[in-house]
Amino acid sequence: MRFYDIIQKKRDRQALTDDELRYTVSGFSAGDVPDYQMAAFLMAVYFSGMDAREVTTLTLAMQQSGDSVDLSPFGSLTADKHSTGGVGDKTTLIALPIVASLGVVVAKMSGRGLGHTGGTVDKLEAIPGFQTTLTRDRFIQQVKEIGIAVVGQSGTLAPADKKMYALRDVTATVDSIPLIASSVMSKKLASGAQNIVLDVKFGSGAFMKTPETASQLAQTMVTIGQAAGRNMAALVTTMDVPLGGAIGNALEVLEAVRVLKGEGGALRDVSCALAAEMLSLCHGWPPAQSAAAVDDALQSGRALEKFRQWIAYQGGDTAFIDDPKALGEAPVQDVFIASQGGYITHLNAELFGKASSALGAGREKAGEGVDPLAGIVLNKSLGDFCAPGETFAVLHTSDKSRLAPARAYLDNAVSYGPDKPSPAPLIHSVIR
Amino acid sequence: MRFYDIIQKKRDRQALTDDELRYTVSGFSAGDVPDYQMAAFLMAVYFSGMDAREVTTLTLAMQQSGDSVDLSPFGSLTADKHSTGGVGDKTTLIALPIVASLGVVVAKMSGRGLGHTGGTVDKLEAIPGFQTTLTRDRFIQQVKEIGIAVVGQSGTLAPADKKMYALRDVTATVDSIPLIASSVMSKKLASGAQNIVLDVKFGSGAFMKTPETASQLAQTMVTIGQAAGRNMAALVTTMDVPLGGAIGNALEVLEAVRVLKGEGGALRDVSCALAAEMLSLCHGWPPAQSAAAVDDALQSGRALEKFRQWIAYQGGDTAFIDDPKALGEAPVQDVFIASQGGYITHLNAELFGKASSALGAGREKAGEGVDPLAGIVLNKSLGDFCAPGETFAVLHTSDKSRLAPARAYLDNAVSYGPDKPSPAPLIHSVIR
Repeated sequence: MRFYDIIQKKRDRQALTDDELRYTVSGFSAGDVPDYQMAAFLMAVYFSGMDAREVTTLTLAMQQSGDSVDLSPFGSLTADKHSTGGVGDKTTLIALPIVASLGVVVAKMSGRGLGHTGGTVDKLEAIPGFQTTLTRDRFIQQVKEIGIAVVGQSGTLAPADKKMYALRDVTATVDSIPLIASSVMSKKLASGAQNIVLDVKFGSGAFMKTPETASQLAQTMVTIGQAAGRNMAALVTTMDVPLGGAIGNALEVLEAVRVLKGEGGALRDVSCALAAEMLSLCHGWPPAQSAAAVDDALQSGRALEKFRQWIAYQGGDTAFIDDPKALGEAPVQDVFIASQGGYITHLNAELFGKASSALGAGREKAGEGVDPLAGIVLNKSLGDFCAPGETFAVLHTSDKSRLAPARAYLDNAVSYGPDKPSPAPLIHSVIR
Repeated sequence: MRFYDIIQKKRDRQALTDDELRYTVSGFSAGDVPDYQMAAFLMAVYFSGMDAREVTTLTLAMQQSGDSVDLSPFGSLTADKHSTGGVGDKTTLIALPIVASLGVVVAKMSGRGLGHTGGTVDKLEAIPGFQTTLTRDRFIQQVKEIGIAVVGQSGTLAPADKKMYALRDVTATVDSIPLIASSVMSKKLASGAQNIVLDVKFGSGAFMKTPETASQLAQTMVTIGQAAGRNMAALVTTMDVPLGGAIGNALEVLEAVRVLKGEGGALRDVSCALAAEMLSLCHGWPPAQSAAAVDDALQSGRALEKFRQWIAYQGGDTAFIDDPKALGEAPVQDVFIASQGGYITHLNAELFGKASSALGAGREKAGEGVDPLAGIVLNKSLGDFCAPGETFAVLHTSDKSRLAPARAYLDNAVSYGPDKPSPAPLIHSVIR
């Protein structure tokens, strides 16, 4: 098989055979297909796309390029959740203990933040003592004992995806639905859960800018997972404004605790919807039954207790659950004042994410460290009225010099209007 | 400037600025832009195209990546000719001595054949003693003395094109009009002639399969040359069937001599049309005057005498001009018999080119040698009647084992029909 012919075929908008797709992954992994040919191929895929069979075969080949976690000893109730990335998105910290308190088995690998988006591993590491690296035996043992464990992503899962992503990242070929879908799903399939719920975000703070492209991506990933024999659901949710009122690792952990203690709002709504989808997939419950079970887990305090148990099992000091100050506080805290007055008609999620990253909460390049205490706490949310000069948000950082660059982002991040805006739905659609 | 942004911009079908295009060439030449990024860029150009300004700037940057030949001491009558490649195309050997006998200054660099297409340098090297490598001084001196010299292409012209072409060749990105046009024209501009006539071929034996795409390529190259201050014309000509009756290096030289001695047919017609365009560009003559001058150069024998002078000046033994056998003859000659009878409705130029190459006349990879005496002489041409069992062609080779692979190509190369086909025009259009 000549890779040249595979490039040419995809360039000419033809569908590739399963053998051709498997060779693409194995040849690239083995180094037989050089980077420059793979780069041309990826750009051809960007323009020509792939059909459902092609993207499924590609995904399975990428999964099979490395190890897969065998969760079959835990039966059919294993569940995973994946978000395509957003600003202030701490739903994992809420939805997982909810479902774990209801018999779902969560043995999850999570990622770190990059650019303006956060990552669950960074958030968990803001908790003193919390270990995001566990031995395989310790991980499995914890799941057996308490039904929930979350660790950092292993490099041995889908190494072909890692190599391919590194190339996509420097050749402007990240932005392609079949390539995103195969990248995400190869890792999700390798992670071993039988039930997978996706949160595909759209809007200013998300990778996908419109609900249409997000729905297309969601549908593609659901199709791949189902073809691989998994139970799949995807929520298409808005990421036009930050989710909730806190951005930054420790600040987000504290907000998650508040929701687990009963606080309402958009963050609770999205977290509960994700948890309910996981329950419906695992237990076969109708949506209303799952929603009621989620409410009960929160109201009864069982979700919070599962959270406490989880954090403690992974070595975290749980004092912050009862005393927020126990997580520590950023030494520099400065107010951000509303320049105008009016109803808040938009909060640009990407700019808030960049501002939070500029304060130290995020990283520009993989491998860099983050300031666990840095971030932004919003005093106002979409639709609130704000008087000129009112405190809009508080900026947290360990380094005073980081305030000015963050403010530069925030200066353009808020829009005001004379009328209270009608709220856009948080959840655009559900794909099952 | 980040090359990533340039890839992304072209991927998004935006026009690049002149600075971005210059950086593309200089960065790639210097090794700052790695092959994998360039490969993604080239595929993005394949899909997104380039406008006239972009392709002109790209071409000039590629030209300026290396040396340019300064022909200004020869005044404004310097002329060059370029064919996009075909089978049996020996027009250079005919058109150049015609125009040189009429005061046009020809200081030309030519290429070698590759795949099923031939190259002028290989043809000239079939002449015993002929030198295709001259020192710069010797080259200039010959042009001064007799007005014509043809040498092999120098590696110092447009080295960025050479590097880019090598990458295109392995990434399925050869086939793009802006990339072909900039590749050809960067070398033509560097070669220094003030007047340039292009022969852009279409059909089964050509790179461009339709007159429409050939016209588009021709127009692009004419626009580039004019923007660079050169006088330009392009003929769009058919290469559906081999041009003339001989394919193979020595065999084609002999056919060129026959045309210079007065033989008619398609080869003479295309060669004369190219010569006339060169005359019109150089002297400003109207087409009829140029055509008449070309006829006169042939009928008077002045073109043939210029050819003889040229061959002798570059060390060639001119005995073959009067005695064809002086070029030598292939030791193995075998007839190819018509399997059917009827009027010849098509001769597949690509298959004839491949058959000739299989006999030893061509090469599969750059750098390989060729058999100067190998090739095919056609006894029949398009529209002729052929009886079953009649000798259709004679195959020439130095190696008997090469006959079978050549015959395998030829078995599918000829089509017959009950009616005499009406001849398609040789010259589809002229772009000035």
